[in-house]
Amino acid sequence: MSHIVTPFEHEVEVRYGETDQMGVVYHANYLLYFEEGRTKMMAALGLPYAEVERRGCALAVRKAALRYRSPARYGETLVVRTWIEKLGGASVLFQYEIVRKDSRERVAEGTTELACVDLRSPSRPVCMVPEDLREALRSALPPA
Amino acid sequence: MSHIVTPFEHEVEVRYGETDQMGVVYHANYLLYFEEGRTKMMAALGLPYAEVERRGCALAVRKAALRYRSPARYGETLVVRTWIEKLGGASVLFQYEIVRKDSRERVAEGTTELACVDLRSPSRPVCMVPEDLREALRSALPPA
Amino acid sequence: MSHIVTPFEHEVEVRYGETDQMGVVYHANYLLYFEEGRTKMMAALGLPYAEVERRGCALAVRKAALRYRSPARYGETLVVRTWIEKLGGASVLFQYEIVRKDSRERVAEGTTELACVDLRSPSRPVCMVPEDLREALRSALPPA
Amino acid sequence: MSHIVTPFEHEVEVRYGETDQMGVVYHANYLLYFEEGRTKMMAALGLPYAEVERRGCALAVRKAALRYRSPARYGETLVVRTWIEKLGGASVLFQYEIVRKDSRERVAEGTTELACVDLRSPSRPVCMVPEDLREALRSALPPA
Repeated sequence: MSHIVTPFEHEVEVRYGETDQMGVVYHANYLLYFEEGRTKMMAALGLPYAEVERRGCALAVRKAALRYRSPARYGETLVVRTWIEKLGGASVLFQYEIVRKDSRERVAEGTTELACVDLRSPSRPVCMVPEDLREALRSALPPA
Repeated sequence: MSHIVTPFEHEVEVRYGETDQMGVVYHANYLLYFEEGRTKMMAALGLPYAEVERRGCALAVRKAALRYRSPARYGETLVVRTWIEKLGGASVLFQYEIVRKDSRERVAEGTTELACVDLRSPSRPVCMVPEDLREALRSALPPA
Repeated sequence: MSHIVTPFEHEVEVRYGETDQMGVVYHANYLLYFEEGRTKMMAALGLPYAEVERRGCALAVRKAALRYRSPARYGETLVVRTWIEKLGGASVLFQYEIVRKDSRERVAEGTTELACVDLRSPSRPVCMVPEDLREALRSALPPA
Repeated sequence: MSHIVTPFEHEVEVRYGETDQMGVVYHANYLLYFEEGRTKMMAALGLPYAEVERRGCALAVRKAALRYRSPARYGETLVVRTWIEKLGGASVLFQYEIVRKDSRERVAEGTTELACVDLRSPSRPVCMVPEDLREALRSALPPA
């Protein structure tokens, strides 16, 4: 199992197509940056999310909350900071903070709660987080 | 001034490009459905949002919260129900509920809090909701 | 089998999130409008595309070409005109024209070539267009 | 002025939200990968596109063509290869090739023709490519 430093940080460069006519990143796109944070953190933990789905388990977003602080613009490099706030029996609460790379000014923050669902059953029922996934995610919890 | 029935309802047909590899609408896209609810409701109120921006005032999303209940799929027709939960001095809280057109089953719900900002000033400071906009939005408040 | 008038027309209202910082519809989004044209035309032909996929056959985009004439803006209503330019053995060539609803001014035009692929085989090989689909699509060919 | 090796290469990791229910990257999203190729190439050339717009000149997409060869999936790393095929008086023709990082298998290819437009005039007329931009872009032409 891999160890990571939390919050896990990765960089995002704002794409032109992610802006809107206000000249800033369209608010829905921060959910894509959050998702990329989860993806890259899980890869760093040694358990890529694509592999999790291949094993028959998905993490489906059940709740999301976002707070926009200062609009990001095309050409800017952002740092997405991702960690796990709570690891439940059948769900995981991810937390995110996005800052400008240069000034570390806060751009946005938020949480997403994901439920573990069983892809092998057509009705996709909620299921317990598999032990190997739980083990990997535990390393992304903040120190007690 | 126009009068509308609240919640204001409009229909959305899920686009193929709005789905993801889980076979359902990608979670960020509900924010686009919410936004279309605001747009269509304001047009019905007689004050199209494009006109609001032309007059120099924007409603910028400051907070968003979403709760996903039952995934929507390509080919489905959804009904977005939009209303104003709270009309503040310099902000507006919109609330949304998305249901399947056929069964009226709940798909998702959420809120977005928008701040009124002055587009005529380069720093885009928060400003009071202009009186004509306030007047129009008042009709979308739920009956007392 | 249903009959339709070709080009098949449907209306699209530009969403805020579809614009970019140039203040116009981001160029990639026209492919979503084209796709909605295909979807709505096939539904009008009595064979919804979601049903086609359920039967085990997909139309996968193999080529696309776009020509941008006059930028569309948030708040505008566009008319997407869709028809079938060529119906091959294992492929379909769709053609599109997008005009402003009011002035009928040309906004964009383009084509997409779609290959029929067999979803029941994991490698998704190209296959012949099934007869019922071919029959439905034939009605969308321009008059000889 | 900076010198670059052409084609200019940069890596893209497919985001979950970029896939569709076919389990592959939605076809419109390749235009975002192309655009990121232009952006990163221009930054490498020492003239970031955000800076070009600040100086009052935009490159607006006038034509696009795409050819899809092999679908990309979530979790894959792609390499976007970008170069300038033709540098006209008032337009630039960019060409792109996307390959898998591992196998170098071709995923997609295409071109976009961009017209230079004057942002300082409200009607945004086509204008000549400014000399400093022309100079920078010349380094991205393939060797004669």
